[in-house]
Amino acid sequence: MDYQKILEDIYQEILPYAKVGKQADYIPALAKVDPDQFGICLRTVDGDTYAFRQADTRFSIQSISKVFAIAMGLSLKGEQIWKKVGKEPSGTAFNSLVQLEIEKGIPRNPFINAGAIVVADILMSELDDPEAEFLNFVRTLCKDDTVDYNMEVAVSEREKGYLNAAIANLLKYHGTIENDIEDVLMFYFKMRSVEMSCRELALAFRAFTCHKDFNYAGYALTSSQVKRLNAVMQTCGFYDEAGEFSYLVGLPGKSGVGGGIVAIYPMKYSVAVWSPRLNSKGNSVMGMKALELLTTYTEESIF
Amino acid sequence: MDYQKILEDIYQEILPYAKVGKQADYIPALAKVDPDQFGICLRTVDGDTYAFRQADTRFSIQSISKVFAIAMGLSLKGEQIWKKVGKEPSGTAFNSLVQLEIEKGIPRNPFINAGAIVVADILMSELDDPEAEFLNFVRTLCKDDTVDYNMEVAVSEREKGYLNAAIANLLKYHGTIENDIEDVLMFYFKMRSVEMSCRELALAFRAFTCHKDFNYAGYALTSSQVKRLNAVMQTCGFYDEAGEFSYLVGLPGKSGVGGGIVAIYPMKYSVAVWSPRLNSKGNSVMGMKALELLTTYTEESIF
Amino acid sequence: MDYQKILEDIYQEILPYAKVGKQADYIPALAKVDPDQFGICLRTVDGDTYAFRQADTRFSIQSISKVFAIAMGLSLKGEQIWKKVGKEPSGTAFNSLVQLEIEKGIPRNPFINAGAIVVADILMSELDDPEAEFLNFVRTLCKDDTVDYNMEVAVSEREKGYLNAAIANLLKYHGTIENDIEDVLMFYFKMRSVEMSCRELALAFRAFTCHKDFNYAGYALTSSQVKRLNAVMQTCGFYDEAGEFSYLVGLPGKSGVGGGIVAIYPMKYSVAVWSPRLNSKGNSVMGMKALELLTTYTEESIF
Amino acid sequence: MDYQKILEDIYQEILPYAKVGKQADYIPALAKVDPDQFGICLRTVDGDTYAFRQADTRFSIQSISKVFAIAMGLSLKGEQIWKKVGKEPSGTAFNSLVQLEIEKGIPRNPFINAGAIVVADILMSELDDPEAEFLNFVRTLCKDDTVDYNMEVAVSEREKGYLNAAIANLLKYHGTIENDIEDVLMFYFKMRSVEMSCRELALAFRAFTCHKDFNYAGYALTSSQVKRLNAVMQTCGFYDEAGEFSYLVGLPGKSGVGGGIVAIYPMKYSVAVWSPRLNSKGNSVMGMKALELLTTYTEESIF
Repeated sequence: MDYQKILEDIYQEILPYAKVGKQADYIPALAKVDPDQFGICLRTVDGDTYAFRQADTRFSIQSISKVFAIAMGLSLKGEQIWKKVGKEPSGTAFNSLVQLEIEKGIPRNPFINAGAIVVADILMSELDDPEAEFLNFVRTLCKDDTVDYNMEVAVSEREKGYLNAAIANLLKYHGTIENDIEDVLMFYFKMRSVEMSCRELALAFRAFTCHKDFNYAGYALTSSQVKRLNAVMQTCGFYDEAGEFSYLVGLPGKSGVGGGIVAIYPMKYSVAVWSPRLNSKGNSVMGMKALELLTTYTEESIF
Repeated sequence: MDYQKILEDIYQEILPYAKVGKQADYIPALAKVDPDQFGICLRTVDGDTYAFRQADTRFSIQSISKVFAIAMGLSLKGEQIWKKVGKEPSGTAFNSLVQLEIEKGIPRNPFINAGAIVVADILMSELDDPEAEFLNFVRTLCKDDTVDYNMEVAVSEREKGYLNAAIANLLKYHGTIENDIEDVLMFYFKMRSVEMSCRELALAFRAFTCHKDFNYAGYALTSSQVKRLNAVMQTCGFYDEAGEFSYLVGLPGKSGVGGGIVAIYPMKYSVAVWSPRLNSKGNSVMGMKALELLTTYTEESIF
Repeated sequence: MDYQKILEDIYQEILPYAKVGKQADYIPALAKVDPDQFGICLRTVDGDTYAFRQADTRFSIQSISKVFAIAMGLSLKGEQIWKKVGKEPSGTAFNSLVQLEIEKGIPRNPFINAGAIVVADILMSELDDPEAEFLNFVRTLCKDDTVDYNMEVAVSEREKGYLNAAIANLLKYHGTIENDIEDVLMFYFKMRSVEMSCRELALAFRAFTCHKDFNYAGYALTSSQVKRLNAVMQTCGFYDEAGEFSYLVGLPGKSGVGGGIVAIYPMKYSVAVWSPRLNSKGNSVMGMKALELLTTYTEESIF
Repeated sequence: MDYQKILEDIYQEILPYAKVGKQADYIPALAKVDPDQFGICLRTVDGDTYAFRQADTRFSIQSISKVFAIAMGLSLKGEQIWKKVGKEPSGTAFNSLVQLEIEKGIPRNPFINAGAIVVADILMSELDDPEAEFLNFVRTLCKDDTVDYNMEVAVSEREKGYLNAAIANLLKYHGTIENDIEDVLMFYFKMRSVEMSCRELALAFRAFTCHKDFNYAGYALTSSQVKRLNAVMQTCGFYDEAGEFSYLVGLPGKSGVGGGIVAIYPMKYSVAVWSPRLNSKGNSVMGMKALELLTTYTEESIF
C-alpha cells in the first residue's frame, strides 16, 4: 500500500474544506494558533512512517490525553477502575451535567470530561507525583523527552473552566472524587495542555495499535486490556459524534479540541492528523475528512 | 482454529450461569418457552459450520430483525435514510421516549425501538408488499423457505405494545412516519416475530461478515455500506449495554429479547447463540458469556 | 366597585394587542374561528353580572373542561384520586412526555394533558354514562341545558391527537389508566369540545368562587375541597406559565387553547374572558392582559 | 378568633408527629441542634401577637433568607431582575442542575438554590457592602439589632457546599453571575446562616403581609410588587412540595432546612413555626402539620 501517495491525494481532495469551521478560541493560547495548518502522520507497526505537511508541528493534544490517562489508570487499578467510571457511550454532548446528575455521579465513560476528571483523581490517589509520572509515560510512549506541559494553556483553561469546575464539584458531591477539587482540576488541565506533533502521536499510539507487550515506563497492560481500551475508544471517543466517526472511518480513535485526531488500525498502523478548524461537534473538519478518505481509499477498516 | 472444541469448552465454562436470569414473559408466547435451552452456531466465510446443542431450534429473533430491516432500507434509500434515523448510540434504555421528545422525533439509531419503527415505515412507503418482501429477503439470506412470521407472537406483542404505540404516536406527531400507525406497528411486530435457529442466523449474517457482493433478493449494498452497517451495529446494537458488549466481546453484534445474539468477525465468521434467560438489560446471560469467552479463547476480535 | 366601567376601560387599553398572536389552527374547526373577537363577563357571588362585547358567543372551552372533570373526580373518589395524579406544578410544557416517563406514569397534576387523561379514565371507571354525566354536571353549573359537545371538534382532535395518544399509551403501559385507550381519548376530547360563552363560564365558576355548598347534579365537595382545588388551579392552571399568571394576575385560573380563560376571586367574583389569538405558551394574549389589568385596577387579588 | 387557643390546640394535635423525621445533619452546627423543639408565633397586622413554646429560640433561617434577598433585589433592580431569574415553579428538587443546564443558566425562580445564588450576585453588584446591607435590612424588618450571621454555620456550609459550588460554576459558565464565585457563595451562605426566632420572623414578615408602605432600611416596594412577591412565594416557595403546601395550607410561605417555615395571610397575619425534624422533601414535619391545621381550624386561607 503506497500510504505516502494516499496521504498526498487525500490532502488534495480535502482542500475545499480548508476554510470550513473555526478553531477553538475559548482561551487566548488556542485562539492565536494559525488555523490554516494541516499535518498528518501514519506509522505502521513495522515502523514505516509516512508524513505530510506540518507533521512535526506540535499542538495542544487536549482530550487525546484522556487515552494516556485511562491507560495508566487501568494499569494501576485493573478492572476496579470501572466502578468509578463507566464504559458506555454518552449519547449527549461531552460536557453534559444532566446525565451525571441522573446517574448519581458515575460518569458514562473516561472520554467525557467528567470521566476524565475521575481518572485524574484516581491517578492522584495512586501516585506520589502524578504530574511527573504522566509526563514520563507520554515521553516514553513517543520516545521524546522534550514533550512537555504548556503551563500557559493549563492556567488559561483553569481560569475559564467554569463548566469543568461545576462537573468536579458535582463529582465531589457524589463522592466520586477523593482529592482536593482545585488540585484535580489543575492536574486535569495540565494533562490536556501537553503538546505533541502528529509524528509523536502516531508513535505514541503504536502502543495501542500493537496490543501485545504493552509496558511503558512501568505501566503494563495485557493484550486483552489494550484491545478493550480500543473498544472503549471506538464507542466513546468522539462524544456525540462517536457513531458518525465509527460509520465514516471505521477505526477506534480520539479527537481533541486543539484539532488533533488519532486513530488506530489494530496490528496495522496508527495515524495522527491535525488541523485546527473544528466542526460544530468540536472535531477537526479536515481531520475527520482525511481519515474518512484514508479508510475509503485503502478499503481497510475494522469492519 | 478448532472452533468446535472451543464452543464445547465454552459451554462447560458457562454452565454455572445456566439458571441465572429469566426469560422475557411479557407475552404468553415468550413466557412458555423452556428457559433452559442453549444453542450456538459459528460459520466461517468459507462455509465451515460449527454447531452445538440446540443450534437447530427456532426461536423468536425479535430485535435481531432490525438488522435485516435497516439493510433493506439502506439498499432502497441509500444515505437518504439517515435523515429520518440517526446512527449515534442512544446512551439510554432502548425504549426511552425522553430522548425522542428532546430530539424532535428523529430516533438516535435504527436499533432502538423508535428507530426500527421508522425503518418499518420507510419500507412500507417504498414497497408494495413489505411483509412478503421482508420475509423473502430473510429467507434468501438463510437459504430456507420455511422461515416465517409467528402471528401469535406478533398479535400478542401488539396487544401489550403500549410503549411502542406511544413511540409510534410520538413519531407521527413529529411527522417522522408517514403510514397509518396501526399498520406500521403491526408490520414492526411481524418482523420481530420471525423465528429462526442459530444455524439459520449464522448463515443469514454471512452477508454482513463478507461485505463484498451483498445482493440478496434484489437488495444490494456496496462493500462500504455493509461495513458501515457493521459499524452501527458495533456502537448501537446493544442499547445501553453497547459499550459493555464492545468491551467484553469486541465484535459488532445484535441481540433480541427472545434470547438470541448474533455477532460477526468481518471476513472471518458469523456466530449466533441463543439462550432465553436474560440479564437486567434484556440480553441473554449465557449468550453474552459465550461470546465473551469465544473472543477471549480465540484472541480474535476487531480491536 | 364599578366593574362595568373597569371592563370597558380595560378593553380600550388592550386594543393595541388585538392583532398579536394567532389562534390555534391544528384542527379546522378552531382554525376557522374569527380571531378578532373578544368577550368578557364578571359575575359577583351576589349575582351581579358585568359583560362586555362578545360575552354571549360560545367557543370551545378546551382545557377549561379539566376543572369540571377533576371536580367530579374529587367528589367521586375523595383524596384517593391523588394517588393517580399529583398536584404539583409541572415546570415543563403541558404535553411533556419526559416528566411522565421519569415519574413512572403518574402525571404531575390534573391540568396537564396526561393528568386530565387520567381523570377521564377515572370518571369512566366510576360512572355508567360518563359523557351524559359530565354534560349534565356542566349544564347544572351554568344553568343552561343547551350547552353541548361539538362532535366535529372532538373527532378532529382525535384524528390529529397523536401526542395525546402517545401520552395515553404511556399511561396504559404504566398501568395508570384502566379503560380502553380509544374510549378514554374520545371521552377526553369530547369534554374539551364543549362550547360555552363567557357568561356561561362565569356562572359555572361561581361554584368554585363561593366554596360553601358545592353540590351540583349530585356532585358535592366540602368547602375545604373547593378551596384546595382552587389552590391546584393557582399553582398548575397555566402549564409553564403558571408562575407568570400568578405573578401578573394573582388569582387562581384556567386557560384553554380555544382562547378562553376563567379566574376566580374567592368569595368575591368569577370572571371569564375570551379572545382566540394565543401567545407562545398557548394562552389568550388579550385574555391575559385583561385579567392583569383587572386585578391591577381593582387592587384586588388573593395576595 | 382566639388564635392563642388554636395554637395550643394545634400543638396537642400534632404531638404524635413529634418524633417523625430527622433534622438536617449535613453540617455539625445543624446536626447538634436539639431536634425535639417546637415554637410558633402568629402576629396580626394590627400587632396582636400569639406565641407558644420555643417561640423565642433562635434557629438558622436558611432558605427563608431568600425572601429577604429577592425583596432587596426587586427594590434595587425592579422588573429587570426577572431577566436573570424566572418566576415559574421548578417542578424538580431544589438543587437540580438538570433544569439549569437545559434552560441555559437562567434559574427557574429565586427560591431554588440556583436562583438565590443569582440574587446574591445581583446584590453584590449593586451594593458596596452587601453583607452589612442585608443584615441591616433584616434587623430593620424584625426591629432587633442583635440578629446576626452565624459564621460557624456559613463556613461549614461552604466547606460541604459542593453542589452549590457546582451550581455557581454553571451559572458563571452561562454568564448569569458576574462576581467571583467564591465571594458569591460565601455571601449566599452567610445570608442563610442568619439566626432568628419565630417571634422575630413573624414580625419581619409583617412587611409582606401588609403590602402597603413597604419601605425598610431604604428598600421600598410598591403594593403591587409585594403582592407579586407573595405570588412567587405561593407557587415556588416549597421546591417540589409547592403544590402540596398550597393544597394543604393555602397560604404563601417559605421554608428552611433549619426547620423553620413562615406563611402569610395577606392583610391579616404572618405566622412563623419551627421544629427541626424534616420530611423527605426537607420541610419541617410539625411545621407543615401546624400550618395545615391552622388554616383548617380558622377556615382562613387565600382560596
